[in-house]
Amino acid sequence: MAVYTEVSDAELEGFVAEYDIGAVVSCKGIAEGVENTNYLLQTETGNFILTLYERRVDPAELPFFIGLMEHLAKRGLRCPTPLHGRDGQSLRQLCGRPAAIISFLQGLWPRQVTAKHCAALGRAMAEMHLKGLDFSQSRANTLSVAAWRPLFEQTRARADEVKPGLADTLGRQLDALEAGWPRQLPSGIIHADLFPDNVFFKGDQVSGLIDFYFACTDFLAYDIAICLNAWCFEPDGSFNVTKARLMLINYQQVRPLAEGEFAALPMLARGAAMRFLLTRLYDWLNTPAGAFVKRKDPLEYDRKLRFHATVDSPAAYGLDVDSLPVGGR
Amino acid sequence: MAVYTEVSDAELEGFVAEYDIGAVVSCKGIAEGVENTNYLLQTETGNFILTLYERRVDPAELPFFIGLMEHLAKRGLRCPTPLHGRDGQSLRQLCGRPAAIISFLQGLWPRQVTAKHCAALGRAMAEMHLKGLDFSQSRANTLSVAAWRPLFEQTRARADEVKPGLADTLGRQLDALEAGWPRQLPSGIIHADLFPDNVFFKGDQVSGLIDFYFACTDFLAYDIAICLNAWCFEPDGSFNVTKARLMLINYQQVRPLAEGEFAALPMLARGAAMRFLLTRLYDWLNTPAGAFVKRKDPLEYDRKLRFHATVDSPAAYGLDVDSLPVGGR
Repeated sequence: MAVYTEVSDAELEGFVAEYDIGAVVSCKGIAEGVENTNYLLQTETGNFILTLYERRVDPAELPFFIGLMEHLAKRGLRCPTPLHGRDGQSLRQLCGRPAAIISFLQGLWPRQVTAKHCAALGRAMAEMHLKGLDFSQSRANTLSVAAWRPLFEQTRARADEVKPGLADTLGRQLDALEAGWPRQLPSGIIHADLFPDNVFFKGDQVSGLIDFYFACTDFLAYDIAICLNAWCFEPDGSFNVTKARLMLINYQQVRPLAEGEFAALPMLARGAAMRFLLTRLYDWLNTPAGAFVKRKDPLEYDRKLRFHATVDSPAAYGLDVDSLPVGGR
Repeated sequence: MAVYTEVSDAELEGFVAEYDIGAVVSCKGIAEGVENTNYLLQTETGNFILTLYERRVDPAELPFFIGLMEHLAKRGLRCPTPLHGRDGQSLRQLCGRPAAIISFLQGLWPRQVTAKHCAALGRAMAEMHLKGLDFSQSRANTLSVAAWRPLFEQTRARADEVKPGLADTLGRQLDALEAGWPRQLPSGIIHADLFPDNVFFKGDQVSGLIDFYFACTDFLAYDIAICLNAWCFEPDGSFNVTKARLMLINYQQVRPLAEGEFAALPMLARGAAMRFLLTRLYDWLNTPAGAFVKRKDPLEYDRKLRFHATVDSPAAYGLDVDSLPVGGR
């Protein structure tokens, strides 16, 4: 849940008057999104999203995120696009924060992920990867392998409060990840947070991707690894190989994986699990009692990490190596 | 913030298909409201509110609340009204909870309350009171004076954790309230939770009242007392007598207060402060660490209670007794 900043009527009306979208009809805080404050803004001309960027987004990086959304939308990807005000600007200040009005995207994010969702996700993710290739800006992934040891050091002393032995496991896994992390794989813009609540569907079809505020430049296959974690485990913790298989097959129909990417999937998936385990653990240990934000269970990702650590071949993700498209080998 | 129940796409589509409002376009959890889960539902024909009634609303009382909204809307009050499905029903089940689709009300609730808001509120509240007089159902106020001692007993032992001496103050104030609580005043349907986030404005005009799920039968002036607490104190704790005066004057232009109501205002305002102090204190002491809900500061109402306890004449609320309309004496 996320309404960190309450916008007064006068401020809101002044802000909206900078745009050609008519007067405010209503404005309601949205419970989704944990990084920013989002309002569903209704004006005389339609529905929009009003986003106020809060502390966790570095204002210096906003031009990258806004530029990326505009680039992807121009290439035909369905994603939110910032509106330009009468002065041509898409980013301005509201209540002392950077703020933008963003186009409203139709669709629902899947509360219960099905195999059909995973299939459609694979295709949409690959399309996003291709459309991002000629984006001129880049941004380092500040939550990739180099960031994990510092996060580990900040959580190590208290990790066993969450689960006895957790600090030990993290240390060993981290050693393995640092040693085995791939050095050269096809890179480009990745979303880096493509969880189900960031993918809207109409029926079985993806109607849009949202929330590009973790987007960065990294191995494209690392985005797939994040999605293997976020989309292919069942609520009981079991790995649904059918979902993974459909996601990968459909991804490859748009962008075939190189052999090196395919081989790296188990290590990338372990890394993706480590990334979310560490940030959840950090938040768990540092969220004050009674805080506004619902803490997410770090141990969900401990279980996922241990699953991927037992995987010795990418075939475990449901894709027969021999079934790879020839173009991708 | 309040999304307690996540509704899956399939369940949502099945639910909406019971109504003549077209197919679902989007559905977003709303951060406002602490009792129920509310979604802003957009369909092919417009915007609606989808409400799932959670634990704190007794399903047996829903027909009262729904009937009241329909009654008030029929009398011309701008308030949300439940839609009827093709089967004529306005209340059905979704995700194992009672649920309804409610009309969408335009306007913004005031983040910064001005004297003009208080003036408009007074008039709207009085209109609601008059329009509710011929509603045929009634519901006891389960959070009035009789409920306070049990709440006090449940919080007494730990009250001083929040502020040293609080249990003592509560005990003494409660004695005074039980002894001095009025026995006979004009009664009818009151909203009982008419805080700024339940009153929508367009400019300085009230565009609607929402959230009738505490509505009950009680002294009409007790609703005014709740609003004196919720609307007329400044963020620094000072009482803004101009706001109170404008609220009362405008109320009286629609429904003049009887002399007994006027005289009872200080005691009613003390009681209203006690009611919110006790429920906030209870929630404060019983909300688990890291819970989803932002706890509200009970001590805000301790300060308000102490203010009203020093008031020995309703003139403190800005209204000269001699200025009362003749009709009201």
